[in-house]
Amino acid sequence: MRFEDLNWFDIENYLKRDDRLIMVIGACEQHAYLSLLTDIKIPLALADSASQKTGVVVAPPLNFGCSKYFEAYPGTLSLRVSTMLDVVEDLVVSAYKQCFKKILIINGHGGNDPARSRLFELVDRFPDLRIRWYSWWLSHSVETVAMKYGLKPAHANWLEAFSFTRVSELPTQEKKPPVHPGIVCPKVARNVYGDGSFGGAYQTDEMVMAEIFQACLLDIIQLLDFET
Amino acid sequence: MRFEDLNWFDIENYLKRDDRLIMVIGACEQHAYLSLLTDIKIPLALADSASQKTGVVVAPPLNFGCSKYFEAYPGTLSLRVSTMLDVVEDLVVSAYKQCFKKILIINGHGGNDPARSRLFELVDRFPDLRIRWYSWWLSHSVETVAMKYGLKPAHANWLEAFSFTRVSELPTQEKKPPVHPGIVCPKVARNVYGDGSFGGAYQTDEMVMAEIFQACLLDIIQLLDFET
Amino acid sequence: MRFEDLNWFDIENYLKRDDRLIMVIGACEQHAYLSLLTDIKIPLALADSASQKTGVVVAPPLNFGCSKYFEAYPGTLSLRVSTMLDVVEDLVVSAYKQCFKKILIINGHGGNDPARSRLFELVDRFPDLRIRWYSWWLSHSVETVAMKYGLKPAHANWLEAFSFTRVSELPTQEKKPPVHPGIVCPKVARNVYGDGSFGGAYQTDEMVMAEIFQACLLDIIQLLDFET
Amino acid sequence: MRFEDLNWFDIENYLKRDDRLIMVIGACEQHAYLSLLTDIKIPLALADSASQKTGVVVAPPLNFGCSKYFEAYPGTLSLRVSTMLDVVEDLVVSAYKQCFKKILIINGHGGNDPARSRLFELVDRFPDLRIRWYSWWLSHSVETVAMKYGLKPAHANWLEAFSFTRVSELPTQEKKPPVHPGIVCPKVARNVYGDGSFGGAYQTDEMVMAEIFQACLLDIIQLLDFET
Amino acid sequence: MRFEDLNWFDIENYLKRDDRLIMVIGACEQHAYLSLLTDIKIPLALADSASQKTGVVVAPPLNFGCSKYFEAYPGTLSLRVSTMLDVVEDLVVSAYKQCFKKILIINGHGGNDPARSRLFELVDRFPDLRIRWYSWWLSHSVETVAMKYGLKPAHANWLEAFSFTRVSELPTQEKKPPVHPGIVCPKVARNVYGDGSFGGAYQTDEMVMAEIFQACLLDIIQLLDFET
Amino acid sequence: MRFEDLNWFDIENYLKRDDRLIMVIGACEQHAYLSLLTDIKIPLALADSASQKTGVVVAPPLNFGCSKYFEAYPGTLSLRVSTMLDVVEDLVVSAYKQCFKKILIINGHGGNDPARSRLFELVDRFPDLRIRWYSWWLSHSVETVAMKYGLKPAHANWLEAFSFTRVSELPTQEKKPPVHPGIVCPKVARNVYGDGSFGGAYQTDEMVMAEIFQACLLDIIQLLDFET
Repeated sequence: MRFEDLNWFDIENYLKRDDRLIMVIGACEQHAYLSLLTDIKIPLALADSASQKTGVVVAPPLNFGCSKYFEAYPGTLSLRVSTMLDVVEDLVVSAYKQCFKKILIINGHGGNDPARSRLFELVDRFPDLRIRWYSWWLSHSVETVAMKYGLKPAHANWLEAFSFTRVSELPTQEKKPPVHPGIVCPKVARNVYGDGSFGGAYQTDEMVMAEIFQACLLDIIQLLDFET
Repeated sequence: MRFEDLNWFDIENYLKRDDRLIMVIGACEQHAYLSLLTDIKIPLALADSASQKTGVVVAPPLNFGCSKYFEAYPGTLSLRVSTMLDVVEDLVVSAYKQCFKKILIINGHGGNDPARSRLFELVDRFPDLRIRWYSWWLSHSVETVAMKYGLKPAHANWLEAFSFTRVSELPTQEKKPPVHPGIVCPKVARNVYGDGSFGGAYQTDEMVMAEIFQACLLDIIQLLDFET
Repeated sequence: MRFEDLNWFDIENYLKRDDRLIMVIGACEQHAYLSLLTDIKIPLALADSASQKTGVVVAPPLNFGCSKYFEAYPGTLSLRVSTMLDVVEDLVVSAYKQCFKKILIINGHGGNDPARSRLFELVDRFPDLRIRWYSWWLSHSVETVAMKYGLKPAHANWLEAFSFTRVSELPTQEKKPPVHPGIVCPKVARNVYGDGSFGGAYQTDEMVMAEIFQACLLDIIQLLDFET
Repeated sequence: MRFEDLNWFDIENYLKRDDRLIMVIGACEQHAYLSLLTDIKIPLALADSASQKTGVVVAPPLNFGCSKYFEAYPGTLSLRVSTMLDVVEDLVVSAYKQCFKKILIINGHGGNDPARSRLFELVDRFPDLRIRWYSWWLSHSVETVAMKYGLKPAHANWLEAFSFTRVSELPTQEKKPPVHPGIVCPKVARNVYGDGSFGGAYQTDEMVMAEIFQACLLDIIQLLDFET
Repeated sequence: MRFEDLNWFDIENYLKRDDRLIMVIGACEQHAYLSLLTDIKIPLALADSASQKTGVVVAPPLNFGCSKYFEAYPGTLSLRVSTMLDVVEDLVVSAYKQCFKKILIINGHGGNDPARSRLFELVDRFPDLRIRWYSWWLSHSVETVAMKYGLKPAHANWLEAFSFTRVSELPTQEKKPPVHPGIVCPKVARNVYGDGSFGGAYQTDEMVMAEIFQACLLDIIQLLDFET
Repeated sequence: MRFEDLNWFDIENYLKRDDRLIMVIGACEQHAYLSLLTDIKIPLALADSASQKTGVVVAPPLNFGCSKYFEAYPGTLSLRVSTMLDVVEDLVVSAYKQCFKKILIINGHGGNDPARSRLFELVDRFPDLRIRWYSWWLSHSVETVAMKYGLKPAHANWLEAFSFTRVSELPTQEKKPPVHPGIVCPKVARNVYGDGSFGGAYQTDEMVMAEIFQACLLDIIQLLDFET
């Protein structure tokens, strides 16, 4: 139930019986050996699955986010934070005007967090608009699974190495986590992070990944029940 | 050769031998019986084909454009024009900083035209940046094919009814083109355009569509030769 | 009936019987041998004539537009596109608040087209605001006259060489139209266009010019009848 | 030597021998019985005279300024202050890029004062850009003449009643100056100011006006000598 | 009665009986031998005294203003004018939403004047919002006291040398006022102003300072009576 | 060593031997029974102490942050997120131009986090600018102390109840932590949070507070050693 497979009549009919919308935001940025679109592919896969279970429609993903940090890695296409705020505002307002009153944003990228501040401004402007925000990798669900298997989640390590985000072989050894350099320019960030992973195992068992995915999916399905 | 199938090492290697990039912009808006993402699907299909022929990489599409006009049709998610200008600027600047010096923007949506003004500002700022812009449906190629078959191209009529943009049955009769209402609010626009098509045949022969596609593809391949 | 010849009492009285306004926008940019204000002089002359026929008042012209393209030609004073959008918004909103509900914008410059996108946003905000936009040189009327005399309209050629836009002698020979260079920086644009004309005859018969002017004037008078 | 009477060749030639430019800004706003364009007509007349004496070219006037205050008076077309700042920036930057390095801005309207703050930012950005700002009615010259004749200068009173700003009969009696109401909304401002004049005599002797004009003209000619 | 000494319950109770608020704006900029926060310390001291007399609460000061001009003097931290306008807007709107309907802004810095333009826009948006603006050093009160003692008020001279703004010894001799250089870059401004004072005596008798302070305080108390 | 106690000569001398600066940002917002300026008072106290130990100068605090969330609590004065980004940019750029090359921002408010995104843009623009960001309550130091005493840190509970942030009696019982309501409008937030505390103990032993303070102070002193 993606917008791309629907026409406007479909949406009009949908809105007669439902007012929920899933929006997907993420980034186009380096993920070490993984796809440059990793931060879109994961929340979109979750959105698709949740849509299948719940019938809630999925808006097209915003394929770019705030990735200034990684701009020295080729293939990273980044929005200024001010632009990101405006895009998220426009999409939410557009949807709201068409009577999508309950919007779940599934976010795949940490750098997009400032958008939450703009969303607080929007719910102040439109009191009957309800927005929920889910950054999947920050959920208790992911934390629980990771701890269960003694894995530490981090950018571009096993955590994001789903079958559908892999575009090349992954290293089999572990990487020593680089020291987080604080607020530095892209060049320094690249020096610090080398291949781009934040360290730990590059991959793990498919079953762990499935467990992570399922846990997040359950979170999402619950969040889509706006009555709770 | 889409970004989503590559990682940053791939792009770094690519940039050692090439500095061209294809960007795809369009809209998420009503297209009568066709997909809400019609304006993305067409330029993206052209970009994929051109990429296959030329090896030029394709950035992720910007799935939204300026569609205020159609905002009374559910499923239309629109950016303010100021936001659109900023997004296009950010993506081009981001790519330019990574040494993509020759960028072809394949545009699928008329409402995005104001972005050209911002691009003129960017090439003034970065003198060695070269940008080309291709609005496929405005090309002489499309005009020629359309005239050859006595068809009039218009929003959401046969012109955009490719196999891959269809998401439902299409009417078989023709539609009388509505009178273009000028600068009016979304509600009036919806009243005027009814099902959303700008009139004429809703579909035509697959061979005509293939001819259109091939003609545009040739245009694009030629535009990607930045020496001419 | 220009604002400059009126005081606020006059406008207050006018608004008791009429709610129409003519706004004139254009550019201050190179027009080869013609006046730098060509893009203002033409729509303003049309506005004055239309005002004489219809009694509709004419706001002061906005003497600048988006002319980044021509900035390497001295005397071109250009607005960023974001600024242009804001100015047009402010003027329209200001007029609307004073109960000018029907506004005809006569535009003299192609680079100002992005302003239309902002106008679509304004009519969405103010549902009882009606705006019409007339880019005189793009009208069917001009096309018809030009074809009748076998002339091709283009920037700074005969099309804009009215008696009142001439500030020097004009070449008598024709110019071979330069190849349109796409989105290039001001320096390249100047190299391509040389004296600044887009080619063809630099001037034509005064009667042709009068015919063009009359045809546009009729268009405008018709557009000012907001009932049609 | 207005831009409107010149083409770009003329400006190019001019710039070979001079790098000075006069810019005129003002407002389109209520001036009681005087022209709505009073704040443009006066600085433009001064600019024309100064141009005649010195040969310095005059850019087209910006016909609008910050007049929110008077927006309840019909015919007042106002820019938001943010827009005003951007317009002034764009015009100055445009001129500077063409090697106008010494710019005198003749301002006809008090509400435009915030633009000075942006100009301070511009001279910081372009160290060899020199800008002077002349608000004619605030000059010591005007003060001196006014005191000499026992007249108090104020908005829309005798001070601005030049022959070329009059568009109707002027009252012959004096007006008691209204109490300045501080930061109030347009409606209150209109209640306070009534016919729009800030009080005192509505007109004075033509010779006084000529003396004012000459005094300002001398100021301007002196300011145009950027060596002092 | 500063916000810092109150919690939100206190403000809620206050708003049951009063709807007035004192806001303090100024600058962090060079003041010759005086504190870098001189432009905050003075209006804040006035605000505190007025609060003591009237019970009106005082919002935290905005410690920065538009000081581009003095940016070559270390310790000057300046806001762009556009930022300043936005901050003032946000604070006023925030307060207004909580039912502070009568706001007195005590301003300590001349460069903040453009904020008044934004305030005019705000009172147009919120008709029942009343704002008063007091730039203490421009008051008739200060002028009167200064004239009485034959002192000329100027930036960073005796006028601002209160006991609480002194952070070092002050020169005992007078300074010849530098020529006001117009709109120049920070470097030139520093060359012109040297130690940063605009000239005249660096200090005067404490009794004069007390008289100035009392005169301003009376002004403020009167302004806080929004009925007059 | 606060700016307010220094003049520009002092800063100029300081910059001859040091290029570090402490900036303090926070919020003016409800903190239950604590001061509305709690989020400023704490980082400022830390900054003062760190300054005493290290000699690094402290810029005036920005007394406002992004607090839209709490705007239904009177006394909360909030900046839009876009404004906040601009203010932080301006202050950092201003300081950087005066050769403060190493800036530590001590942040007292979670809502200010989006500013980090703008800072990443700034270090990209000024490669020799180094910025560190310290949100004291998120430090491992605070976590350690809190765990040691079995206390859970939260907004407006014991964590922020220093002697210098108290402005009234504090409840002696504990509060059941309200359920975090996600992205909701101010009114709902107030309903959920009641007195404004996020729950747990309202106060704890002074010795615990001193331990927290010391731990943060050590962090800051270490961060001020930019060589590590």
